[in-house]
Amino acid sequence: MSAAPRGTAAGAPVTVAIQGEAGAFSHVAAVQQFGAGVTLRPCADFDELLRRVGAGEADAGAVPVENTLTGSVLDNFDRLLAHGLPVVAETFVRIRLCLVVRPGTRLEDVRRVASHPVALAQCRRYFAARPAWTPVQAYDTAGSVRDLMAGTVSADAVVASDAAAALYGARVLAAAIEDHAANYTRFLFVAREPAPPPVPAKASLAFTVAHVPGALHAALGVFARRGLNLTRIESRPLTGRPWQYRFYVDVIAAGAAAIEEATRELGAGASSCHVLGVYAATEPPTP
Amino acid sequence: MSAAPRGTAAGAPVTVAIQGEAGAFSHVAAVQQFGAGVTLRPCADFDELLRRVGAGEADAGAVPVENTLTGSVLDNFDRLLAHGLPVVAETFVRIRLCLVVRPGTRLEDVRRVASHPVALAQCRRYFAARPAWTPVQAYDTAGSVRDLMAGTVSADAVVASDAAAALYGARVLAAAIEDHAANYTRFLFVAREPAPPPVPAKASLAFTVAHVPGALHAALGVFARRGLNLTRIESRPLTGRPWQYRFYVDVIAAGAAAIEEATRELGAGASSCHVLGVYAATEPPTP
Repeated sequence: MSAAPRGTAAGAPVTVAIQGEAGAFSHVAAVQQFGAGVTLRPCADFDELLRRVGAGEADAGAVPVENTLTGSVLDNFDRLLAHGLPVVAETFVRIRLCLVVRPGTRLEDVRRVASHPVALAQCRRYFAARPAWTPVQAYDTAGSVRDLMAGTVSADAVVASDAAAALYGARVLAAAIEDHAANYTRFLFVAREPAPPPVPAKASLAFTVAHVPGALHAALGVFARRGLNLTRIESRPLTGRPWQYRFYVDVIAAGAAAIEEATRELGAGASSCHVLGVYAATEPPTP
Repeated sequence: MSAAPRGTAAGAPVTVAIQGEAGAFSHVAAVQQFGAGVTLRPCADFDELLRRVGAGEADAGAVPVENTLTGSVLDNFDRLLAHGLPVVAETFVRIRLCLVVRPGTRLEDVRRVASHPVALAQCRRYFAARPAWTPVQAYDTAGSVRDLMAGTVSADAVVASDAAAALYGARVLAAAIEDHAANYTRFLFVAREPAPPPVPAKASLAFTVAHVPGALHAALGVFARRGLNLTRIESRPLTGRPWQYRFYVDVIAAGAAAIEEATRELGAGASSCHVLGVYAATEPPTP
């Protein structure tokens, strides 16, 4: 648990916008970062989430950007850049998936299993061993527990967190059914105001480079020369400029000053450089 | 049009495995690369496609890896590495989307429009101007034309290529309805045997680096020092090794020898380096 975003009175309840419903992994991320006293503001999608934070309707917003099995949520990097809200914190959530049923349902009653497509895909081995079961795609994991309990989903079971099962009074029939235990999602939190300078500092940056050989290598040299640790790199196409790319990187430094110096140099040489946010570096978990 | 894959008699018809149906953009890619005489082998998914090429049931397989609007098809890089079939060619297909109907359907009759979700998303502005229309998600673009003509889809129109419309006897009611004209997909072709050394040579590589600051910069220096042009970089998570990544890069050189030298150096320093294929570099199109 960390401090509330700047502008929030210490100890005051923090309102966090999440995509999806109470019990979603975004809810777990919000509690991990701001404590059990958070007030949720569920949003239908990430654009709504970022709009609400920008409008001051929530103190912070939880944005998943990377999963250790499925990779980056690339659209969300583009959204962070487009909305321009500063990233103020990161947290890592262990994704532990369970087979969740209504009380009284037995394993032999299960025929149809609903969940978000990504959650279903992360339990491929569990389902491969149960070929008679039919997967049913749903909007999100926690919402499918709620719908299962309300009887509004055509399924006997859903895949979700134990937190979602507990929240809606459902039962966990099998826990940790995911293929790989090393299943984590990294969330970034955005707010209206930047975080105070952290130590050690992590920064999320977006930059473009000149369209010439060696340009990306030269740009990365700006970090390497200062001993900054590049923990992540992604490229995204530039709309209307085919075969040219924007790079999203995360770097860690002893303090915010080294990052500021590096981004200044990068911005001078490259076509553009945006700082998405500078926030406290968190040690990523391993199983 | 290029030469047939090695092992195919010159002039003999080439069998190309594609994901989806005749009239799909993969079909357009196959014709662009191997000529109008290609025989198609439609596959349900890319794993089936790669298996069939590996088993010799097709001379080549078309694998989309990148779109100028939506970015990389990241799963397909992982599949190329896992199946180990050599990449032998690349081609770029202009994605031009049309509103396709049964003969006799007028614009004012349209209420529901079916297509692949990505095709629908690429026509966002066209649909935003027609708020009464309901989008319907379908398995692929060409298949939705076929289903429209067979009356087995609950829609009055579909979004697809003019090639698919012509193939199934449907009519184009509006052409080039996509948001951005700079809409291209890059396809790689795999075969059972590598391509003969091309000039200039392009290579698709997969490598991992040591988990220390500056390691990626040092790896990219192997290319930069030789003046090799890095045209693309992507990272993908390593399963079971959270927060470590595999990098997929494309590089262009005057000949295959420079690439061989660079990959040898890269393989010596990094944890692993795989050459997905060395093939003739094609000039990427722009609108």
